[in-house]
Amino acid sequence: MTRFTDGRVPYSGMAEVFSPERRWQRYLDVEAALAMAEAELGVIPEEAGPAIAAAARVERIDLVRVEQGTTESSHPLMPLIVELSRVVGEPHGGWVHWGATTQNITQTADVLGLREAHRILLDQLADVLDAAGTLADRGLGMVMAGRTHGQQAVPITFGFKTAAWIDQLLRHLQRLEELHDRLLVAMMGGAAGTFASLGIDGPAVQAAVARRLGLGSMPVPARSIADQFAEFVCVLAMLASSTGAIGAEIFTLMTVEFGEVAEPAPPGVIGSSTMPHKQNPQLCQDMVTISAQIRALVPLALEGMAHGHEADGARTEMTDAAVTGACLLAADQLARLQVVLAGLELDPDRMRSNLMLTGGLITSEAVMLALGKTIGRQVAHEVVRDAAQTARFTGRDFADVLAEDPRVHAHLDAAAIVKLVDPHAHTGLSDQIAHDAAERARKAAVEARRR
Amino acid sequence: MTRFTDGRVPYSGMAEVFSPERRWQRYLDVEAALAMAEAELGVIPEEAGPAIAAAARVERIDLVRVEQGTTESSHPLMPLIVELSRVVGEPHGGWVHWGATTQNITQTADVLGLREAHRILLDQLADVLDAAGTLADRGLGMVMAGRTHGQQAVPITFGFKTAAWIDQLLRHLQRLEELHDRLLVAMMGGAAGTFASLGIDGPAVQAAVARRLGLGSMPVPARSIADQFAEFVCVLAMLASSTGAIGAEIFTLMTVEFGEVAEPAPPGVIGSSTMPHKQNPQLCQDMVTISAQIRALVPLALEGMAHGHEADGARTEMTDAAVTGACLLAADQLARLQVVLAGLELDPDRMRSNLMLTGGLITSEAVMLALGKTIGRQVAHEVVRDAAQTARFTGRDFADVLAEDPRVHAHLDAAAIVKLVDPHAHTGLSDQIAHDAAERARKAAVEARRR
Amino acid sequence: MTRFTDGRVPYSGMAEVFSPERRWQRYLDVEAALAMAEAELGVIPEEAGPAIAAAARVERIDLVRVEQGTTESSHPLMPLIVELSRVVGEPHGGWVHWGATTQNITQTADVLGLREAHRILLDQLADVLDAAGTLADRGLGMVMAGRTHGQQAVPITFGFKTAAWIDQLLRHLQRLEELHDRLLVAMMGGAAGTFASLGIDGPAVQAAVARRLGLGSMPVPARSIADQFAEFVCVLAMLASSTGAIGAEIFTLMTVEFGEVAEPAPPGVIGSSTMPHKQNPQLCQDMVTISAQIRALVPLALEGMAHGHEADGARTEMTDAAVTGACLLAADQLARLQVVLAGLELDPDRMRSNLMLTGGLITSEAVMLALGKTIGRQVAHEVVRDAAQTARFTGRDFADVLAEDPRVHAHLDAAAIVKLVDPHAHTGLSDQIAHDAAERARKAAVEARRR
Amino acid sequence: MTRFTDGRVPYSGMAEVFSPERRWQRYLDVEAALAMAEAELGVIPEEAGPAIAAAARVERIDLVRVEQGTTESSHPLMPLIVELSRVVGEPHGGWVHWGATTQNITQTADVLGLREAHRILLDQLADVLDAAGTLADRGLGMVMAGRTHGQQAVPITFGFKTAAWIDQLLRHLQRLEELHDRLLVAMMGGAAGTFASLGIDGPAVQAAVARRLGLGSMPVPARSIADQFAEFVCVLAMLASSTGAIGAEIFTLMTVEFGEVAEPAPPGVIGSSTMPHKQNPQLCQDMVTISAQIRALVPLALEGMAHGHEADGARTEMTDAAVTGACLLAADQLARLQVVLAGLELDPDRMRSNLMLTGGLITSEAVMLALGKTIGRQVAHEVVRDAAQTARFTGRDFADVLAEDPRVHAHLDAAAIVKLVDPHAHTGLSDQIAHDAAERARKAAVEARRR
Repeated sequence: MTRFTDGRVPYSGMAEVFSPERRWQRYLDVEAALAMAEAELGVIPEEAGPAIAAAARVERIDLVRVEQGTTESSHPLMPLIVELSRVVGEPHGGWVHWGATTQNITQTADVLGLREAHRILLDQLADVLDAAGTLADRGLGMVMAGRTHGQQAVPITFGFKTAAWIDQLLRHLQRLEELHDRLLVAMMGGAAGTFASLGIDGPAVQAAVARRLGLGSMPVPARSIADQFAEFVCVLAMLASSTGAIGAEIFTLMTVEFGEVAEPAPPGVIGSSTMPHKQNPQLCQDMVTISAQIRALVPLALEGMAHGHEADGARTEMTDAAVTGACLLAADQLARLQVVLAGLELDPDRMRSNLMLTGGLITSEAVMLALGKTIGRQVAHEVVRDAAQTARFTGRDFADVLAEDPRVHAHLDAAAIVKLVDPHAHTGLSDQIAHDAAERARKAAVEARRR
Repeated sequence: MTRFTDGRVPYSGMAEVFSPERRWQRYLDVEAALAMAEAELGVIPEEAGPAIAAAARVERIDLVRVEQGTTESSHPLMPLIVELSRVVGEPHGGWVHWGATTQNITQTADVLGLREAHRILLDQLADVLDAAGTLADRGLGMVMAGRTHGQQAVPITFGFKTAAWIDQLLRHLQRLEELHDRLLVAMMGGAAGTFASLGIDGPAVQAAVARRLGLGSMPVPARSIADQFAEFVCVLAMLASSTGAIGAEIFTLMTVEFGEVAEPAPPGVIGSSTMPHKQNPQLCQDMVTISAQIRALVPLALEGMAHGHEADGARTEMTDAAVTGACLLAADQLARLQVVLAGLELDPDRMRSNLMLTGGLITSEAVMLALGKTIGRQVAHEVVRDAAQTARFTGRDFADVLAEDPRVHAHLDAAAIVKLVDPHAHTGLSDQIAHDAAERARKAAVEARRR
Repeated sequence: MTRFTDGRVPYSGMAEVFSPERRWQRYLDVEAALAMAEAELGVIPEEAGPAIAAAARVERIDLVRVEQGTTESSHPLMPLIVELSRVVGEPHGGWVHWGATTQNITQTADVLGLREAHRILLDQLADVLDAAGTLADRGLGMVMAGRTHGQQAVPITFGFKTAAWIDQLLRHLQRLEELHDRLLVAMMGGAAGTFASLGIDGPAVQAAVARRLGLGSMPVPARSIADQFAEFVCVLAMLASSTGAIGAEIFTLMTVEFGEVAEPAPPGVIGSSTMPHKQNPQLCQDMVTISAQIRALVPLALEGMAHGHEADGARTEMTDAAVTGACLLAADQLARLQVVLAGLELDPDRMRSNLMLTGGLITSEAVMLALGKTIGRQVAHEVVRDAAQTARFTGRDFADVLAEDPRVHAHLDAAAIVKLVDPHAHTGLSDQIAHDAAERARKAAVEARRR
Repeated sequence: MTRFTDGRVPYSGMAEVFSPERRWQRYLDVEAALAMAEAELGVIPEEAGPAIAAAARVERIDLVRVEQGTTESSHPLMPLIVELSRVVGEPHGGWVHWGATTQNITQTADVLGLREAHRILLDQLADVLDAAGTLADRGLGMVMAGRTHGQQAVPITFGFKTAAWIDQLLRHLQRLEELHDRLLVAMMGGAAGTFASLGIDGPAVQAAVARRLGLGSMPVPARSIADQFAEFVCVLAMLASSTGAIGAEIFTLMTVEFGEVAEPAPPGVIGSSTMPHKQNPQLCQDMVTISAQIRALVPLALEGMAHGHEADGARTEMTDAAVTGACLLAADQLARLQVVLAGLELDPDRMRSNLMLTGGLITSEAVMLALGKTIGRQVAHEVVRDAAQTARFTGRDFADVLAEDPRVHAHLDAAAIVKLVDPHAHTGLSDQIAHDAAERARKAAVEARRR
């Protein structure tokens, strides 16, 4: 997942989380926690616990031998167990992995990885929210065209636009927090999830393992349960959709024709090998690409939920591919979003001149409402629509056309019209909404970091 | 979305929720609530509110004229506004739709529909949970093969299998409840979401409309915000994945070769036009089909989030298609799940005989653990694996092969072996887990209905 | 799939193809063809064929009784068979459906529907290609900014832009033609596809049915084979992607800020209920929406291929939902594409003024190449990049900045520079490519209609 | 995309195709071909061509410097161009990359990679077809239950089942061949695809580059055209669906309860860390997983088609991720399919005993047809259905129940019934179909390798 733009954004640390070495260590961490928990509860000899825990360090393991064993046995964990037992040695080596099935170790370990990933994403999102809050503040009073269906509609401020982004991001943060306790749970139910191997001690062992690892405990520790992972991918995909949309929006506003904002571009960045003048919205394009990539993982995650019987490795692999991929991609995407929001260049002059492109038509609603108070909304809609059409087709100023229409000047004098067609008078509560959103963003950022 | 099996399940009422007439009435309900709120707050004349509200009944509207107006104007709401104004008549007709944009009405109205849909789905899910709880109880002590990767692994009870279903369904219920307040919100921010038309009264009007309609109020009433709808579709897709997986599981267990359960089949149902003996798992197949159909709506819902600028009707339409489709499909699916779980035929004799198909191999873990206590887990794994291979390839009984191996009989006598290879002794905490899940299911059903 | 814009486009006839009545008639058509084929080959009595064929008219069938039978039997075909037998009466009624299984009839009948759908889509595509050809001609010599990564890059003509659309559409047409023979095949292999019921006559019966219906014949008439349907959906999704992208492009070019083209808008069409001036790109938005909807059917169609064993109705239903949906949506989309391309308003003045927005920077490549011939491509890239940066940040004219740079004026005089920065001189082979594409489009349209 | 089962299958060589070093070399290959073509056509000095071609070897390039340049410039190609120019040195270094834009090089180079990938996949598919042909032959006369909707339906042979697989694979091969000429094309149209930089020589240069590289030439060399890549992903996804379905089928048939086939398992492979007896269908599970992974790339590839304007790097990246991923996954999947089909263990005894599980019901169609000849199909269906129900609920033999029914023994004597209920008499043309499919498979394999 290397991108040629990687040099432009800070590194999140996510790739390390999923490195082979870190994954092996997490497997060992779970085997250690299991041994300690079983020793504590008298399931295995008391000294076996610390002996195993002490050996469960990746630097004590011969990973080459483990990898070779994997190739020979076509088993994802057994060679590590054998190697760990060897390192522990007599008399405790035989108690390694006691009562557990492979997936107990691998899934609980993967969940540990997801805890790290979740933490990274929360931190990144906090940074993004801070940047968005500042951006919303910068956009206060910066009047621009609000556009619906691609067409200029009514005036807004740039702060308001940012508020709509913040509002979505805050809900995604809330979702990430809500899923936390469902996602980060240990599973120690054994071969089919019934605690058959540990018997009556099973729930206590699982609880102790969970406690040692800082996780929750699954009420039904069935290996066929994967909805919590699918949920994580879905929430990351929703976050990605918003982020991708923000990227696409800036991409558009950054075209020469709009020219209202620009992605920050450090010196040295080259746009094109053949067009020396080009400055491309590379980070925004990345956000768009990554959005599609993350969203494409959702069907995979949902298919991964459909285990047959008590477990199906084919589904576990789907889930694993989807979750790992989504975390890596989300971190890359948020890194870009943060850089772009924090450094976004704004051009209020251009925003203002674009606002005038329609010769005042952008205030048609205001005129209609003013007129509607006396002649009724319905008739006013028709009157203003006629004037708008005339202005559009003749290229004349909207105010002038209005002033000539007897249906208008019977109720509004020239001064009133001039005032009505001033876009700056019609941004409604844009700035109040922006201000509130900025406050919420900063507050949520603080809380997200503290979590 | 008619299916030839519709006659076999109770009708949920979901299709009506999305009928054209009900949709028109919801549009009118929102126009009425808007007028009442504006009258109450002095935005429009006091009498205009009740006058508009009284007229806003679909039976007073000439829908033929509205439909014709839609064709001519290519506008989804304007003809209704015109017609409503006509019915209200002078002097209040002109205050219809005051300060609102089309999407304020249509989206808030659609949200009212989703509230009904959400209610129906919660009720259905409550019924499903009751049926699942009862099924888990019926499955207590019903020993069967637990299977992982399609292979017999260790024994479980049917109750345990049901518990794993319940556990997922409970989380889906939780998710549906968590999203409630995010989903069911009124949006009255006007053309770009800035309250430009209502000004300082805007938030109060939106709050009053929301209160009258029993909805929450959007903090940023931007038309470009659709994450709440995408979330609903995602959660329904997760629910659909679990439901589809249950359907697929019963489909498998119902094959002649497994023969452990059967979908209830009322007399009169025909399996095949050319194979008179056939009884097909029609409802389970429906669950599988619908799962795929709902999951396929997720990418659409996620794309629907990516509005450009302050609104994009193309995205609104994607969202609408995804959400409406998901609700209709989910209701059809849950109706089938409830019927199947409530009437599922269980064959404990067949479960037991299948359990013996491997000649005792299914207890290999138990033997290994017993042996492991003296010779170590690692060595025990090898010893038992050897015995299992021999038993498999010679077709001999696992217990006999074990009894002949000196590495075994040095530690376990024949009686101990016989006891170990009895599957009924190795279901672990299957029934305790099943019992707890059934309790949780029933409790959640009560709460879901009460919500 | 009704849209409020339906009044703006011609009706394709696609909805009728999938109406219940037409579907029942197709079922009857296949039963008739089967009976005639079997009678011809001596599988059933000679007179039974014509007797059944004569009765197999939907107007002779009591559809109410059939629908009621469906509800009671939960079987999609058996009630029709019973009713058809009743209409045929003694002595031939018993030979109805001889040797066939339900899916033989329903699938082969559905394929007949797809043949109609394929024909409609080919005709629509031919109309689209004609419109696109004309549009390419209109765009010859119409110089505008070529844009890459959203930024102005080098000049093109509007004709060239259209050529890139045509080129894709031609390949989609080719794909639709290539899949024709794979898709339109009769399946008469009986219960498991082995011709067990018809025995040695089986292939001949299937071939005769196919011939009578104007279809090909499946070499392995297995009910589990559905790749041909998935392929159809995939190709329609590719077509939809191109069409959606064209819609999105026009949507962008139609914004006030670009203003280069406009979707045709008939009088009477209303843009907004609150902004009287608005003219929205409704048909283009539809194209975007429908693109997402069709693409969302691909995963469903692909899942529909994964039959278990010799048939799985759950998969057949997925396939059916995907294929039917894709045909209906594709017809709606192509209808809009044709109207938009045929009536697209072009504004060459605005294209030209946009081209000047960068003060000549759009010709930087041309300057670099001219300069490169003497000082080398690499150095020229740097020189021109410096000048572009200066021009951008100072707001000065590109030509002026260039003229002042000694690295430039050593090799190019002022007149040469002025000539180089004229965008009209740098459209390359835009028009030749456009002309060729228009020719190919028209030729393909003729052939597609003739097919 | 490492899997723990990799040791069990031959390595396809696909990963190398997409290694960074090979990719850099392909970039250089295209720059070389471009220089040679331009020299040949007099666009650049004659000696510049060979000079550049000679330098364009990855071993002559300082890749560390290139990677560092990428980080600094955030450009995917420029640092390589600079480095190549440096290696070429004066006087020809300045002619490197003459008239080309980055995407001309990267895309054409990627297409060269896809040519290798396409070749590998064809070879793998040929091996798969050979294995499938042999398997179909092995399955001749091997009678087993045909199953529809998961229920035993009518007898088939294992050869027939294989034939249905072959038939799909052959069509996928055909699709791969049909897309060959659309996919493998050079694109040398310059910055916007208009040949602006090369002018009148453009088409000849592109044709010469294409010829040197063994590719076709794009008629409209627009950078926004990506349907050919999406098509490749779609076809690979269809192939993956079939392959995944085969994997799922073998997974099912390999359960203890079916027991009809087994995935080959080399000694040393370990099934479970806690259940020593387990033998898991690992390769089949991989096929299922990979199927989901490849299918998940289709939406990405389709989104990648939707370029805005004349090119959008966000789309190019989507396309690249989808195509590369699909090739890597497809190779992994086909390697597993080949191993599984070539070594599949078949258990005809178990097939036969499963066939008897329904006590003869599997022949109900045969009885109905025999009876139908005298009493009519409709009545016969009812008679046989009654008998089947009785047999099922009483557990009695189907033949015995039939023999007691006066509606049956009036027309069929005991001997006739016994003969009718013999499954081996009712496999229809299973073997003929299997034989033909095997022949077609072998023939296609030869042709595919020769292509």
